[in-house]
Formats: sequence, C-alpha cells, structure tokens
Amino acid sequence: MFQQITILGPGLLGASLALALKERGLCTRVHAWSRRATTRACAQEANWCDAVFDQPAAACAGSELVVICTPVETIVPLLEQIGSALAPSALVTDVGSTKSLICREARGTGVNFIGSHPMAGSERTGMAHARADLFTGAACIITPLEAAPDAEIARLLKLWEAIGMQVVTTTPEKHDEIVAHISHLPHLLASSLCSYLSGQDADWKALSGGGLRDTTRVAAGDPDLWKQILEQNREEVLRAIDGFENELHALKTALLDQDTPQLIAKLERGKKYRDSL
Amino acid sequence: MFQQITILGPGLLGASLALALKERGLCTRVHAWSRRATTRACAQEANWCDAVFDQPAAACAGSELVVICTPVETIVPLLEQIGSALAPSALVTDVGSTKSLICREARGTGVNFIGSHPMAGSERTGMAHARADLFTGAACIITPLEAAPDAEIARLLKLWEAIGMQVVTTTPEKHDEIVAHISHLPHLLASSLCSYLSGQDADWKALSGGGLRDTTRVAAGDPDLWKQILEQNREEVLRAIDGFENELHALKTALLDQDTPQLIAKLERGKKYRDSL
Repeated sequence: MFQQITILGPGLLGASLALALKERGLCTRVHAWSRRATTRACAQEANWCDAVFDQPAAACAGSELVVICTPVETIVPLLEQIGSALAPSALVTDVGSTKSLICREARGTGVNFIGSHPMAGSERTGMAHARADLFTGAACIITPLEAAPDAEIARLLKLWEAIGMQVVTTTPEKHDEIVAHISHLPHLLASSLCSYLSGQDADWKALSGGGLRDTTRVAAGDPDLWKQILEQNREEVLRAIDGFENELHALKTALLDQDTPQLIAKLERGKKYRDSL
Repeated sequence: MFQQITILGPGLLGASLALALKERGLCTRVHAWSRRATTRACAQEANWCDAVFDQPAAACAGSELVVICTPVETIVPLLEQIGSALAPSALVTDVGSTKSLICREARGTGVNFIGSHPMAGSERTGMAHARADLFTGAACIITPLEAAPDAEIARLLKLWEAIGMQVVTTTPEKHDEIVAHISHLPHLLASSLCSYLSGQDADWKALSGGGLRDTTRVAAGDPDLWKQILEQNREEVLRAIDGFENELHALKTALLDQDTPQLIAKLERGKKYRDSL
C-alpha cells in the first residue's frame, strides 16, 4: 500500500497506526518526527520505526502519506512547515479530535490535506501503550472539503479501512457537532464531576465503587490536550452543554416536584439509549 | 459463623453473599424467599440455596441472620412482616442504597436491624450473575442507630469483613449524603447524558467510542430501582445536583469567556481527583 509514510508526533495513535500498517504488510518504511528528544529516542528503539528526524519537513521528504498526530493546536502550524518538503502526490491527514478550524485553515496551506478522526484511543497516552489492534472495529470520521478530489478521498478511506475501521464521511462542521455531543460533552461531565467531588470530603473516595470509576475514567485525560480540543470546538461544545443543562434541570424538577412518572420516563429513556450502544 | 441465614429477595447481591459465605465455610444452611415464583424456582436450583419459601416470615424462622436484598421501598414493609417470626437473637440487615428513611422507619418495627450498604454490584442484576468474589476488596458502609448494642454492631461488621469488605461505620444521614455524591449523582448524570443523546441523531451512536460507553455504563441500571433510590434520598440528591450544576456552569463560563487558565485549572483538578481514585 505504501513504500514510505511519516508519523508526526508519534504517541498512542501514531505508533499504533504504524504498528497496524506494518503488521499487515501495508507499509515498508516509517519515518517519525517528534518535538521532544525523549520521544525521538523512544521511537528510535521502537520496532515500527525506521528513521527518526528532528525536523518535521525532513521527516516528510519522499513519503506518500503523512499522518499528523500532534495536539490539535499544532496541526496547522505543522502543515505550514512541511508543505514545501512534500512530494506532489503525498496525502496528508491527521488524527485530531476537532475538524472545522483545522480543515478551514489547512486549505490556505496548499497541502493535499484531508482531515481524519479515528474514534479510538485511551486515557493511557504515549507510544509505550501502542498496539496494532487499537483501531480494529472502531469508527473513523473523515472530513474532506468540497474541493477534495475523489481519488484522494478514496485513498484515505482505504487507509483506515485497511486497519479495520468503519469509515464515515461528513463535513468538518458536522463532525464537530457530533463529537461535541458523543465525546467532548461526556468528557467534560466526567471532568466536572471529579472537579466537584474534589471539593468534598476526601475520605469519601475510599467508599466509591466501580460505577464512579467507570463514569469518570475519561477525566484522567491530559488537561492541556483537552483544553485545546474544547477551545477549538467551543461553539458546538457550549451548545451541547446548554442542551445537557436543560436535560439535567428537567430531571431535577421531576425529583423536586415528586413527579414519579416523569422521573421514571427519563430513567427509562436513558437506559434504552445505553442498552442500544 | 452461622448455622442458618435467610436471604430475602435473592438477586445479584443476595446470591453472591450466600455463595461467598458458603465458599468460606461460614454458613451451613441458606433459606431464600422471593416475591416472584420464577426467582424462587431459580433459587431452588442454585447451589447456594438449601430451602425456598413463598412467605418471608416462614423463610426467617430459626435463622441467626436475615439479609434483605429487595428494592429499597420494600425493606421496611418486609421488616414489619417478619418481625414476629424472628428468633430473639436474630440480626437483620439489608443491602439497600439508601439508609436514612429505612433506618428511621426500621426503629418502629422493633426488629434488631442495622443497615448495611455494600458498595458492590453491577448493572448486570439477577442471581444468574452472582459470584463469590463480588464483594472482595469493596467498601461496605454500616449505619447503626445510637441505640444499637455494640455487640450487634460487631457481629454485622464481622459478617462483611469475613467476605473481604472494608467496613466503614457512619450515621444513616451521613451515608445518604456520601452516596448522593459518589453514587447517585454519577448515576443520574450518566442517565441524563443518555436521555439527552437519545434526542439527537441516532446515527451518531455508531461513531461513539469507549469513552461514551464507560461514562454511561451505569445508566443501564433498572429504572424502577433507581427511581426508588433517588426518591428515598431526594433531599441529598437535589443538593448534590445543585452543587454539580454550579461546577458545570463555572466550566461553561470559563469556556464562554475564553478564560484558558480557569479552564485548565478545572481540567487539572478533575484529573487529579480521578487519578487518586
């Protein structure tokens, strides 16, 4: 599939992608670049990596595919840096959790870029946790702009399908609306719950069960990465919070008014949705 | 430890408790009662159960320990039914998720009752999912009233410790405040999130990842059981919702005002708490 690819910012996702492609014989050579010297040193030792670079443009020279796996705020700045080093036929994508701002700004760089968001991952970040099956069975959203050539969209779709993902194509704006609801809102609810509970008696923690641990698992995510995601998807996240606040308020009102039928209806609606996931 | 015990309403918790006691040789004979004929038929076949009864009082005759494992609203009515059949030295406890109302009303029944709340369980209810190690390593809160004899408190404490639980003693009121925060609030946030998302595009579900599934797992719990829990712990749950609403509103305001330091501070506080669980 590819003679040479480049991973910019190899962490859990980038290293897992390289592993998945190599394990399937879909890629011969992997170049990697990281801003951090320690990450470069680890990549040097990793079995998925063939060459490490300390400049992103140098890492991209001669690659047919470049996957940017850095925090969302640095994706467009990297596109600007690598543009002149890319082969004319090189396809560039990313794994960022937001898409509107990135895809809009990417257009101005002249790079052959189509955004991707593989909905895989873990709160265990870093290439040390990489595994070839991280993506298997998960969904991937790709967000080509209207001007994207069909052949390039098809190339990108094949990449994610080749490693076992269910690919869905939509606009960057629709993507951001969707993930605000199914990913960013759950994250900030878990985070807010933990932030709220941190103000309560510390002894209560020892009494919590698996329910609290599961409900809040994602709150262990990196605060700086999540600040970038929430800020880049600000409008949609704010809309999702408003919607949730109304829902919670309605449940509170049902409890306050001792409106048992309404309370049960809400719990049943929640259970039905959860059972369908 | 016990010649004979009775489980009223054997589901996941009651059957797991009987299994755990028998496996450790701490109990010779287990009686069971259930309101439902199908549950009685299943108990009859189960290896932890020695005799099944269709009247709760009959099931309790001659037992040294009675554990009520029914939904919270039926615990006190059962105490009233079994009182006259109990041996004078019988200890009665429960596994209900609320304590204030139950313990206050139990006092009037004259039964030697001390409330328990083992913080174990699963959204997979029913005795078919019972396992002897369900309680191992989990916390159990016991809530004796002031009048409870020390010897009876010690007996109850030994029961839960014998099956591997970390036992904490507090008042019923304090218990309800604690679980409103660490159990009931997480549950209704998960449920409200699911209820809210059920009003959005159904196609979005296929795109969700492990984050949403984990965050909402508890929302699969039985709506009728949870309605009873939320209604019995109404005041404390309403207070916890208010506190959470303020927290979420502060995060929304930070995002709206583009107050990045405040946004990061909140995400970091959340992560620190989650990491400490």
